[in-house]
Amino acid sequence: MKSSTNIVKQVYEIDVLSRENIMNQKGLVLWFTGLSGSGKSTLANEVETQLYQNQKHTFLLDGDNLRHGLNCDLGFSDIDRKENIRRVAHVANLMADAGLIVLSAFVSPFHSDRLEASKIIGKNRFIEIFVDCPLSICESRDVKGLYSKARKGIISDFTGISSPFEAPINPTIKVETDTMDLKVCAKKIISFISQYHV
Amino acid sequence: MKSSTNIVKQVYEIDVLSRENIMNQKGLVLWFTGLSGSGKSTLANEVETQLYQNQKHTFLLDGDNLRHGLNCDLGFSDIDRKENIRRVAHVANLMADAGLIVLSAFVSPFHSDRLEASKIIGKNRFIEIFVDCPLSICESRDVKGLYSKARKGIISDFTGISSPFEAPINPTIKVETDTMDLKVCAKKIISFISQYHV
Repeated sequence: MKSSTNIVKQVYEIDVLSRENIMNQKGLVLWFTGLSGSGKSTLANEVETQLYQNQKHTFLLDGDNLRHGLNCDLGFSDIDRKENIRRVAHVANLMADAGLIVLSAFVSPFHSDRLEASKIIGKNRFIEIFVDCPLSICESRDVKGLYSKARKGIISDFTGISSPFEAPINPTIKVETDTMDLKVCAKKIISFISQYHV
Repeated sequence: MKSSTNIVKQVYEIDVLSRENIMNQKGLVLWFTGLSGSGKSTLANEVETQLYQNQKHTFLLDGDNLRHGLNCDLGFSDIDRKENIRRVAHVANLMADAGLIVLSAFVSPFHSDRLEASKIIGKNRFIEIFVDCPLSICESRDVKGLYSKARKGIISDFTGISSPFEAPINPTIKVETDTMDLKVCAKKIISFISQYHV
């Protein structure tokens, strides 16, 4: 970490609480973690749609809008994955400070990175959602053809095949997308976060 | 740029327009550029406060919340400044996609970097605001004591002293903080962006 000696702390007129007040919600981060093909983005999309129907202000961060933009300089090595997650966590944190309900859908396979993310965002507004689905089912779905490429060695460092997935030990919410219906999973999440008066 | 071969484009249910609709505003980026001490953050703060009074949803990005977080790995060399601005532009772009009015207050001294930022964000929603103030006045204010340190060589690559400031040739809005009152500068900006029905 480089020292930022020429940065002096500002006093902001409008703070997190002010922004949350006019948004009529609380800034939160729903952190979806799970294997490729487990249904993270699909589920995050469904949750976002249901929140939108309740006039809630949301944003979905995933590989599609991060990997092609902010993180286009990063690959999939362990060190690049770590930096990817660090940046995602900071963006999610700023967006939660803006009052938004952020849905983050990344494999985020390592314990240490998710722990770091929760520290950056703040444990009181970091909701870890384990999108659990057996590897064999994710691989058989293979909607993106990625497992096939990973098995052939065309893609390296692929989680579940050539790179580990460290499942959350004590996630805030766990959903099993191989046995539970999409709407049921989404409802479980919406129901949980309703305690935050979002 | 590394290839992101294992990223497949998702179809989002909730898009920019949907989010702008329930926010009752349009996502915009107000990009304040100017010397250290020119009053960028103070002015951005005043504009944000006035927008807030109109129930507008905003977020202010500046060195304080970026340099200590997302960009804590970056220093002030030309290459690090460039990367700083690239990341700020991507974060501002995502926040504008979320429907927010983003206020970005960074020195951003180089033409090429501001041009790149406008391309990332989209020229139709990138408002370049030149916070113009003579170097001698910024230096005499020296509220943060940075010019003094820069003159003594304690801080290197300091814009205006040991690193160039390339003033915008054709900014969307120009305010002169040495002769114009803060409220007048803010009003000029608010008045301009009202055409966007924010």
